[in-house]
Amino acid sequence: MSETRVYPWPRLHEFCERVFQSRGVPDREARLAADVLSASDRRGIDSHGVARLRTYYDLLSVGRINPRPTPRILRETPSTATVDGDNGLGLVVGPWANDVAMDKAAASGTGWVSVCNTNHYGIAGYYVMKAAERDMIGWSMTNTSKGVAPLWGAERMLGTNPIAIAFPAGEEPPIVLDMATSTVAYGKIEMADREGEDIPLGWAIDADGVPTTDPRAMMRGGALVPLGSDREHGGHKGYGLGLAVDVLCAVLSGANWGPFTPPFALRQPDPPRSVGKGIGHFFGAMRVDAFRDVDEFKAHVDDFIRTLRATRPAPGTSGPLLPGDPERFAQAERDAGGIPLIAAVVEDLRDIARSSGVPLD
Amino acid sequence: MSETRVYPWPRLHEFCERVFQSRGVPDREARLAADVLSASDRRGIDSHGVARLRTYYDLLSVGRINPRPTPRILRETPSTATVDGDNGLGLVVGPWANDVAMDKAAASGTGWVSVCNTNHYGIAGYYVMKAAERDMIGWSMTNTSKGVAPLWGAERMLGTNPIAIAFPAGEEPPIVLDMATSTVAYGKIEMADREGEDIPLGWAIDADGVPTTDPRAMMRGGALVPLGSDREHGGHKGYGLGLAVDVLCAVLSGANWGPFTPPFALRQPDPPRSVGKGIGHFFGAMRVDAFRDVDEFKAHVDDFIRTLRATRPAPGTSGPLLPGDPERFAQAERDAGGIPLIAAVVEDLRDIARSSGVPLD
Repeated sequence: MSETRVYPWPRLHEFCERVFQSRGVPDREARLAADVLSASDRRGIDSHGVARLRTYYDLLSVGRINPRPTPRILRETPSTATVDGDNGLGLVVGPWANDVAMDKAAASGTGWVSVCNTNHYGIAGYYVMKAAERDMIGWSMTNTSKGVAPLWGAERMLGTNPIAIAFPAGEEPPIVLDMATSTVAYGKIEMADREGEDIPLGWAIDADGVPTTDPRAMMRGGALVPLGSDREHGGHKGYGLGLAVDVLCAVLSGANWGPFTPPFALRQPDPPRSVGKGIGHFFGAMRVDAFRDVDEFKAHVDDFIRTLRATRPAPGTSGPLLPGDPERFAQAERDAGGIPLIAAVVEDLRDIARSSGVPLD
Repeated sequence: MSETRVYPWPRLHEFCERVFQSRGVPDREARLAADVLSASDRRGIDSHGVARLRTYYDLLSVGRINPRPTPRILRETPSTATVDGDNGLGLVVGPWANDVAMDKAAASGTGWVSVCNTNHYGIAGYYVMKAAERDMIGWSMTNTSKGVAPLWGAERMLGTNPIAIAFPAGEEPPIVLDMATSTVAYGKIEMADREGEDIPLGWAIDADGVPTTDPRAMMRGGALVPLGSDREHGGHKGYGLGLAVDVLCAVLSGANWGPFTPPFALRQPDPPRSVGKGIGHFFGAMRVDAFRDVDEFKAHVDDFIRTLRATRPAPGTSGPLLPGDPERFAQAERDAGGIPLIAAVVEDLRDIARSSGVPLD
């Protein structure tokens, strides 16, 4: 049995890079894929970093993901492109398609790219931060395999379908929103289960469609619920946003949508029918200076950020944060102190090390 | 004292059109403004139709809104424009700017327009339905005067900042999402107050920032809360979306943002400082055939809609709806049976009729 371990992020980055290389991923792409995973670990989003390396590794090993994809543009206009990811790693296809969006924006003001035939792409926030670095407003979405019930439904029909948007700032850090359109991510249910705790009402339903506080009732045939939880609190809104993400990522590109989105796992059964190719992503980039002088825009974003930070705090809090603050705080801590990994993840990585021949410790 | 009345929508449309004309709005624009208000009444969104005519009328009467604006493009690229609405009715500037977005999309694949120096524009959904009619995906957002506290804040800093998105379908009706980024709209608090009822926890806070079930506690210095309600249920997500709307509508265009957005009312004090011109809107249009054949796209949207309708229903429900269903049902009912107006609105309209000389009954 392994124990919790702490690794400096560059050590994990190198390990991921070499593991991807061992599965036939070319050097440049292996580094890029490791970059995306590291961004997640450094930003404190444990569910989307090296904890997922096992699945990428397994799917590459059995040939379910193409290690050397040639993504191509199926159709384009001055501000759009539809991309076929050639069944590559989302961690490689995603950055490629995001670059297309940013290059279109450089030429035409904005760029919007819908991607089919791709796989899990890591954290949505990675892509939009790249746009913000180029003085663009970044958008990123992906559909994911089903886990969420539509409002008034009793079964899983949509993924947690995240949306990320980033706005560049001047002296302040950029605003980076990165959110699942469900109330919580599946990882929070697993964590409660592992710790033997109940979950709050409003996170999930059981297999009969009844709201539950038992994490296992969700895991065994139940479902997550959309942001807003129930009708009274706006669950139809989270459901509508999740659906919009699915249409933009998958219906627009020719990928599988809704309940037919393939699972990101080796041993889960395929959906009952296929309605497209792989999963789908959607990227957008908007040049700030297409709308307003960049310096002026940034000065106002800074002012807005400071205005929000100066909000009178709710009792028992230190006042509002800005989207991206928690991840930025985590990164400062983890860049200094390392990435803490739970025992199960350490065990996975040791297993990959043995099987691939890439040394871990 | 007036009583509840039911009017056929064309009767109210004609009244609105003539009232706008009486305030100096040119014929074509008066008709357009009446179209937007009627769309709201017909779709069952009582808060945004003729119920608001009083405020438009008052603001036009005292010269706070320009009845004959000349909107102009301040800056543009092939896929973007920044528009100054010349302090016109949002009901007139909005359709103008939305047309610019659709025309840009026709030429360059997509069009994105951020608008400053404008006023309340009716329902966000009106604009996106226009795009769907042209086989485009429509986007529409507006910022509004402050009413919502950021998560962990104890005071109003953002508007209810709605987002609308529409996707054209084939044989099925289009998907039309139109949602405030707060848990509920202010109108629901007023309605509970009028009927002497409590509001659910998770809708609002009182003046001290404490969650409340008393509608008056919200109205007297409290605030609405973002979609998600509290930290545990994702209130940071609704807050992030509301902030994104404000940046896209106002910071990008040069309008007033956040707590400095001017009120849509005659007798409310102006915000403590001005950081731009008027309020802001944001419109987007994406040509479906820029990404995929329109027929193919629509066939998949139809399939997705039917798949969602076939979801196993949650207990006590008849199963999931699609975004836009409730409004479509309301429209069928109201086009046949008329628009029911509460006594206070009837009184407002009679008052306008007396003052403007436009006959109502």
